[in-house]
Amino acid sequence: MSSCLMMSLLILPAADAGKEVDEAVRDVLKLQAAAWNKGDLEGFMQGYWHSPKLSFSSGGDITRGWDATLERYKKRYRSEGAEMGKLTFSELEIEPIGAGAALVRGRWQLVRSKDKPGGVFTLIFRKMPEGWRIVHDHTSGS
Amino acid sequence: MSSCLMMSLLILPAADAGKEVDEAVRDVLKLQAAAWNKGDLEGFMQGYWHSPKLSFSSGGDITRGWDATLERYKKRYRSEGAEMGKLTFSELEIEPIGAGAALVRGRWQLVRSKDKPGGVFTLIFRKMPEGWRIVHDHTSGS
Repeated sequence: MSSCLMMSLLILPAADAGKEVDEAVRDVLKLQAAAWNKGDLEGFMQGYWHSPKLSFSSGGDITRGWDATLERYKKRYRSEGAEMGKLTFSELEIEPIGAGAALVRGRWQLVRSKDKPGGVFTLIFRKMPEGWRIVHDHTSGS
Repeated sequence: MSSCLMMSLLILPAADAGKEVDEAVRDVLKLQAAAWNKGDLEGFMQGYWHSPKLSFSSGGDITRGWDATLERYKKRYRSEGAEMGKLTFSELEIEPIGAGAALVRGRWQLVRSKDKPGGVFTLIFRKMPEGWRIVHDHTSGS
């Protein structure tokens, strides 16, 4: 067996793993955006790890746990006078870290009747028994 | 050998690895704060991966590369009328991800003569040949 072929065989599993992570992460984010754009905040929240250990950093604070994160979204986007608008994720960069984790950078954009807030996010995904989920989200606006 | 002892032997290396990461990350952040507080921005930058692939997310944008990140800091903290002040990192949470990587959450606080800006950060550290370095930083203010 040539050393080139051997190298290919050694490299392949890592490349496959990268592809699997890439697809899994994109699927979760697609489902999140689709849920958001139907006004389904609980559906959107399915992309997050359903755990008290979920963390969400934004605006100088860290929100702890899935329930508190949902409440935060509700206050900002479903209270009186608030509007969810249309959400788009773009410029995704998905980088596997070890086995079963990924660093994801990207951009978010909301289009609402009165404004167009947007910014960047850093997500840490982990492979859980229920699938790939966001375990930490740091979102900031422009 | 009892199964308990075997489990201990299996668990020990992971715990040791966690401790090693914890100390290494704290050391880097201590050196960063010490350099900052001497007005040594280049020293502060030693905590970051010296690579064009370093990324720094803040204020709705992603800065790419060590050089551009240093420039960003210079503009904000060493241009005319700017002040570096005294920097403190606190509430550090250091979580190993696989081998050779860690997710770090924490809080930053600057005390300057005219203001006290602060906020939270998410860091991804990786173990490089030169030591543990920040490869991605997402910093946001309150």
